[in-house]
Amino acid sequence: MTKYEQLAQELKTRIAQGVWQAGDKLPSLRQTVADSGLSLMTVLNAYQLLESQGVISAQAKSGYLVAPKPELIARQGEAFRYPERQKPIYLSDSVDINEFVFNVLQASKQADIVPFGSGFPDPSLFPQQALARSLVKVTRHMSPSFAADNLPPGNAGLRKAISQRYAKLGMSISPDEIIITSGAMEALNLSLATLTQAGDWVVIESPTFYGAMQAIERLKLRAIAVATDPQQGIDLEALAEVLKTYPVKACWLMSQHQNPLGCSLSDAKKQALYQLLNEHKVSLIEDDVYQELYVDSSAPRPVKAFDTEGRVLHCGSFSKSLIAGYRVGWVAAGCHAPQLQRLQVMSTLSTSAPMQLAIADFIQSAQYERHLKQLRKKLASRKLAMYQLLCAHLPESVGVNFAQGGYFLWLALPSHMDATQIYYQAIERGISIAPGNLFSNQVEFRHFMRLNASYECLPEIVSAVVVLAELIRNYSRRS
Amino acid sequence: MTKYEQLAQELKTRIAQGVWQAGDKLPSLRQTVADSGLSLMTVLNAYQLLESQGVISAQAKSGYLVAPKPELIARQGEAFRYPERQKPIYLSDSVDINEFVFNVLQASKQADIVPFGSGFPDPSLFPQQALARSLVKVTRHMSPSFAADNLPPGNAGLRKAISQRYAKLGMSISPDEIIITSGAMEALNLSLATLTQAGDWVVIESPTFYGAMQAIERLKLRAIAVATDPQQGIDLEALAEVLKTYPVKACWLMSQHQNPLGCSLSDAKKQALYQLLNEHKVSLIEDDVYQELYVDSSAPRPVKAFDTEGRVLHCGSFSKSLIAGYRVGWVAAGCHAPQLQRLQVMSTLSTSAPMQLAIADFIQSAQYERHLKQLRKKLASRKLAMYQLLCAHLPESVGVNFAQGGYFLWLALPSHMDATQIYYQAIERGISIAPGNLFSNQVEFRHFMRLNASYECLPEIVSAVVVLAELIRNYSRRS
Repeated sequence: MTKYEQLAQELKTRIAQGVWQAGDKLPSLRQTVADSGLSLMTVLNAYQLLESQGVISAQAKSGYLVAPKPELIARQGEAFRYPERQKPIYLSDSVDINEFVFNVLQASKQADIVPFGSGFPDPSLFPQQALARSLVKVTRHMSPSFAADNLPPGNAGLRKAISQRYAKLGMSISPDEIIITSGAMEALNLSLATLTQAGDWVVIESPTFYGAMQAIERLKLRAIAVATDPQQGIDLEALAEVLKTYPVKACWLMSQHQNPLGCSLSDAKKQALYQLLNEHKVSLIEDDVYQELYVDSSAPRPVKAFDTEGRVLHCGSFSKSLIAGYRVGWVAAGCHAPQLQRLQVMSTLSTSAPMQLAIADFIQSAQYERHLKQLRKKLASRKLAMYQLLCAHLPESVGVNFAQGGYFLWLALPSHMDATQIYYQAIERGISIAPGNLFSNQVEFRHFMRLNASYECLPEIVSAVVVLAELIRNYSRRS
Repeated sequence: MTKYEQLAQELKTRIAQGVWQAGDKLPSLRQTVADSGLSLMTVLNAYQLLESQGVISAQAKSGYLVAPKPELIARQGEAFRYPERQKPIYLSDSVDINEFVFNVLQASKQADIVPFGSGFPDPSLFPQQALARSLVKVTRHMSPSFAADNLPPGNAGLRKAISQRYAKLGMSISPDEIIITSGAMEALNLSLATLTQAGDWVVIESPTFYGAMQAIERLKLRAIAVATDPQQGIDLEALAEVLKTYPVKACWLMSQHQNPLGCSLSDAKKQALYQLLNEHKVSLIEDDVYQELYVDSSAPRPVKAFDTEGRVLHCGSFSKSLIAGYRVGWVAAGCHAPQLQRLQVMSTLSTSAPMQLAIADFIQSAQYERHLKQLRKKLASRKLAMYQLLCAHLPESVGVNFAQGGYFLWLALPSHMDATQIYYQAIERGISIAPGNLFSNQVEFRHFMRLNASYECLPEIVSAVVVLAELIRNYSRRS
């Protein structure tokens, strides 16, 4: 351990002991230099390490504040616990949120809207110019056969670079099982199409990413949504019961930085989940698009890391961690890779070749790690600031779920409220939100909403939070 | 009419009268200058006009040769007429050519193979460097919100530019009904998914583009393949019968430069086709990816041009006429545009933004028309040269179908032969072909093959034709 790591560890221990608690100001850098006898650089490094781990956050003019502990997360609000947690929920034939999802997405396109409803991080966090330079470089050197060379499974260099990133996590994933796709959306859809036939049963989370519900509807599958806790993730007992009762073919879930909740499974729970699925010979589609957006110093490993039988199709993307709009994702599909590749050839043929080449170039350079470190740090501090802002302005009856990593906050309004109403009112005031109804075909989440916390707390963001709080207060008064 | 147009017309008339016949050498430029008293430039322009129209072809060292007349097309071979032309053919549940199609595509990726089996034009015909410059230019000026700005329906400038190209054909297509897709493959698949539900009946051509069969299989549709003539296109009588007998929801076909046959419908037939479909309220998915690869001086108009009810979903692409590997296509979806757009958001989210921007930039410049003119001219002359090469080397029993436009030649081997056998033997000799079985789930096309005629007749191409001829001869002898 270096000196600064030692200091960071000491500070962490004291925070755990309650010497400084959530929201408390840490001693200033100068003070700590004086107290410890260490150099300013060592102290600064220690503080920055703690910041990158989400333990503390830097606040302009007020120094470093202690972040809320994961187990202390959030204000509970009136109604944070979900109704009927253990009960599987059936997706009927009538999943019909396409129109609404589409409208919410369209709203986020408007340039002048405050995009709390957006699923993407603040684009200013992306190294757009550096990627453009990679793109320029690779297009200048493309062989005339570049289109054929990059047909499925995709660019060989990019697949190798992705397999090397798995290796950093201690996972052995051959480039041969990796298929490059048009974003994770295609990876997920192809995975589901590969594993299932019309009429098959699939498990999803409740609440879940809306894309899962729509893929299920399109493929004429039957789905069971298993209760998922905003801190602990999917309810394994409920899942076990479902697997005993139904001939489930596949399970589609997010083990890390779940959308919309933000929660991640512990390593132990990931392993238990894998064992449970393996017992029942059920394949897992692991949507892991926020993989890189963790806050601890060491990267968490997905469920795929526990996969001994090739049952996990691990879907990743560069759209949330590197650049949106290039539309490059992938799936590590294990033994399903050949079949999935054939399906891709028949649905979109292949992923755009220059995009593959540009991303391969960028992620093989040192810039990528530097960018990710910056991104993690900024997201952690912005999310915390947004959390604090919400706590300061929202009525006490509103619960705010804070989970480490990613950039989503999940809000529980009082149970009589309908977030869709808030959505329409907020849009009129130039603010988008993602109402709970997007993430389920049941009404149980209608009083929830997902907020994007990746934006810097500039005055317009603060004003938007004030407006949101006002809309919620007025709603309460009216009803 | 200019002088050179007059001269071209005169020469054309004489060719029609049989003064010079298919394969004959035209008088040299010098000779014609002497005969006509016109300037060398005028004569050259006239010859080039005729060349661009596919009437004559320039041959190195031997001047200009007369091209075969469309109605004289090709050597008939033993068995050019299809068996059971009027009989609709059912696609059973067992369409299972994925594996084979995939292998054929993979084979075309090998750098050292002579790609007669490829579906793409010779990549050296594409303005790769000029497009790279467009890409560089647009990436330097991308706004930070470029990802959101180019979400479905896609980049506004590109959609406008596409609608302006329709206007050049005298067609009024609003940018609002155009949706940018990841190549035509996605456009076609989304169109079919928009129009149908599992169990619905769909009409396709026989033979057909394999992508149609696979989309039908994936969506659990039922299909009827209607006989399609290598010169005249789809059999409208057979189609009329099918429409009377089955509750057909949609028809998927190519009205221009059909894949694999190469044939195009006449304007009259296009109109009749539309009327027939309209009578039965059947929507048309018009796959028109070779639209720009015509040979006459004026561009043919697709069936969509006759669409008065918004029944035609016209699918186009830049992959065959401008650049492969960028994966940018579109669909003009009429009244189906809103639904199709929602489907796209849920399947691939959107088409890569930099690719959309680069193509928009390029096609709005004068370079695009210049490129297309060059491309049409080169393809016409290469296809003719390849046709002549095949006629010179293949056994008399092999028929070669020559249709104007595009770059495919369709060969009929003697009926006892299996082109799949030739395919495997040819691959071993470093040559790919596209065997007839790719284009049908029936055995009736197993003695046919599609050849790519977009490559220049360099020595290695000539050698490959010689090898192909040898394989066919040996096959005959053995059996």
